[in-house]
Amino acid sequence: MDIMQSSLEKHKEWGGKIEIISRTRINDRDSLSHAYTPGVAQPCLEIEKDPSLSYTLTRRHNLVAVITDGTAVLGLGDIGPLAAMPVMEGKCALFKEFADVDAFPLCVNSKDTDEIVNTIANIGLSFGGINLEDIAAPRCFEIEAKLKERLDIPVFHDDQHGTAIVVAAALVNACKVAGKQISELEIVINGAGSAGIAIAKHLLALGVGNLILVDINGILASDETYENPAHNEIASLTNKNKKHGKLADAVQGADVFIGVSRPKLLTAEMIQSMNQKPIVFAMANPVPEIMPDEAKQAGAYIVGTGRSDFPNQINNVVAFPGVFKGALAVRAKDINQEMKVAATKAIAGCVSDDKLNADFILPDAFDRSVALAVAKAVAQAAIDSGVAGLDVNPLASS
Amino acid sequence: MDIMQSSLEKHKEWGGKIEIISRTRINDRDSLSHAYTPGVAQPCLEIEKDPSLSYTLTRRHNLVAVITDGTAVLGLGDIGPLAAMPVMEGKCALFKEFADVDAFPLCVNSKDTDEIVNTIANIGLSFGGINLEDIAAPRCFEIEAKLKERLDIPVFHDDQHGTAIVVAAALVNACKVAGKQISELEIVINGAGSAGIAIAKHLLALGVGNLILVDINGILASDETYENPAHNEIASLTNKNKKHGKLADAVQGADVFIGVSRPKLLTAEMIQSMNQKPIVFAMANPVPEIMPDEAKQAGAYIVGTGRSDFPNQINNVVAFPGVFKGALAVRAKDINQEMKVAATKAIAGCVSDDKLNADFILPDAFDRSVALAVAKAVAQAAIDSGVAGLDVNPLASS
Repeated sequence: MDIMQSSLEKHKEWGGKIEIISRTRINDRDSLSHAYTPGVAQPCLEIEKDPSLSYTLTRRHNLVAVITDGTAVLGLGDIGPLAAMPVMEGKCALFKEFADVDAFPLCVNSKDTDEIVNTIANIGLSFGGINLEDIAAPRCFEIEAKLKERLDIPVFHDDQHGTAIVVAAALVNACKVAGKQISELEIVINGAGSAGIAIAKHLLALGVGNLILVDINGILASDETYENPAHNEIASLTNKNKKHGKLADAVQGADVFIGVSRPKLLTAEMIQSMNQKPIVFAMANPVPEIMPDEAKQAGAYIVGTGRSDFPNQINNVVAFPGVFKGALAVRAKDINQEMKVAATKAIAGCVSDDKLNADFILPDAFDRSVALAVAKAVAQAAIDSGVAGLDVNPLASS
Repeated sequence: MDIMQSSLEKHKEWGGKIEIISRTRINDRDSLSHAYTPGVAQPCLEIEKDPSLSYTLTRRHNLVAVITDGTAVLGLGDIGPLAAMPVMEGKCALFKEFADVDAFPLCVNSKDTDEIVNTIANIGLSFGGINLEDIAAPRCFEIEAKLKERLDIPVFHDDQHGTAIVVAAALVNACKVAGKQISELEIVINGAGSAGIAIAKHLLALGVGNLILVDINGILASDETYENPAHNEIASLTNKNKKHGKLADAVQGADVFIGVSRPKLLTAEMIQSMNQKPIVFAMANPVPEIMPDEAKQAGAYIVGTGRSDFPNQINNVVAFPGVFKGALAVRAKDINQEMKVAATKAIAGCVSDDKLNADFILPDAFDRSVALAVAKAVAQAAIDSGVAGLDVNPLASS
């Protein structure tokens, strides 16, 4: 039985991958009158007086919503909110498994940006954070931006920022292995959707040398005008030398290829045209932009993919659980650039120098120390950058 | 330490009364590829082809949302959505404890009816049912009605229907004890808010003789006109003889007093003016319309209250867990009148004839057989009335 069929069977067995349990037994009048009426009136009144107490008297302090509109689910595209639920439940299971964060899946039955924003904003205060998931570009940018304005809890589109954090962590360690300087890197990102743009912005924040985005129509340059406003914005921030042309032109002399695009777009010839010790992150799923063995044969010094069956899997699971755990721990109002950079450095730091090599640039997805290391760093960055609701990092000593 | 203070302490200890757990471990590549990518794509695609599979491949089949806008919380009134959360979490804990139903609390940060309706309608397909809670009248009527139209899952305002189901069950058994016929009962309901009106409608469906509603301005009669459209509607359905006057006028000769109003409104003299073997359900919280000992002294034959420290506690907890469990079991599209009547009869039937007496007309709140008995009856009624998504009652043999 292949993995798809056996996964389907398992889903039937599970009958849902998440479950909501009660943290207290209610089995006699005394417990009922504490957990419910009349006693429950007291925590209600305390929160009414001091809204910050919602973080101590309800589950909010550990609770994230995982929300989609079902328009860009995995590589399946616009399969709708109902069909997206197995992925959202899976994400919630990962939150619990890796960071002991409670996460609840919600699928919004609308494709109207304002309707989606209003819906999420209206229920936002039931949660300590919002993880947006699998929402198509360019809608995802506007939804995230508007929600960040309206809510004073973290709003984080994982397909953008989670991916960017992990790619950057992989790049930090790949540079160590290859002896390259972040500030001198020439980078090509193939794919200018939400992930590609988020990776670009995050790498700019890390101070990379030069960066070129390529989409299906070729290199993005600031002396061109694009229909997608996100493309005009990112073109203005990248491609210093206003290079034009196709992917093959972009990668000539580049140190790094980052693919968030489609299978088999990168050729051996293209890799051969790159700078010495080329770094290739080919993350198209399930078939990468170039297969790792082919990339290595063509001279790639370090190769990463999104797949678990090759070395250097670039997987969000080392980022989002710890990012939210850290944000929740200090009641952060936002997940800002400083926190994302802290997460990147923490993930990179989880691979010790003695273990670091061309086939081991990222911690294992099942390394249980990662989420806590990320959470500590993110919490501290939230405090230092002034977006935390608490002054002290409760994770510091854990 | 009084109950309010000790409840507050317990809430601090609990740090939230609900928790979301994963129903499957994800601790190696194999489990990750089944619960998440790439395997999870298969259940997604199956649901896309056949939406009814969302009931087998996700948690929807056992999942209820408990939703409020925070405008009528317990007896506290409009304390806002954030402060309402401890009650919603408590309700969710009760769902799990009494019926093994997963329930998730959501507080909507809006007082605009259409905004609330849109918000809930947009996320409705994430759930198998919606329990509306503590929403002020008359907004609650419109919200429920509009959601019932827009969603093909049960929408149930518990403050209305849960209360009505339990009051009716108490009345069925009280009649047995007092030797009265349901069809001949003269009933006075004091309080014409959402609970009072729902009780009235439900008792009419059970075939009671005559029924009079009284609010703060006196008896509702069809030859008067009211600002609140719900009052005009219910006046047209009740008070056959177009009686006018105050509560004291209404109760003269009545068999039953049902209070969902305010403390101390019913006097000994009023009870003395009622028909023989008067039945008094004084449910104002925490202080009833008349204290049970006083009512008994004045001649009340059977007395019930909302309180756990007197006999005959009329408590929704014997209704809503089983009602939703039954509706979910057969994927009901609605909770209709037939299902509510079935719930009432099932609850009444949980007190065996040999145990039934004036101080024991309702099953104990902690009687674990009640939820299943209610669920079985409700599921069957859903099938019989044509609103079930399944043809066979899976609870029938349990």
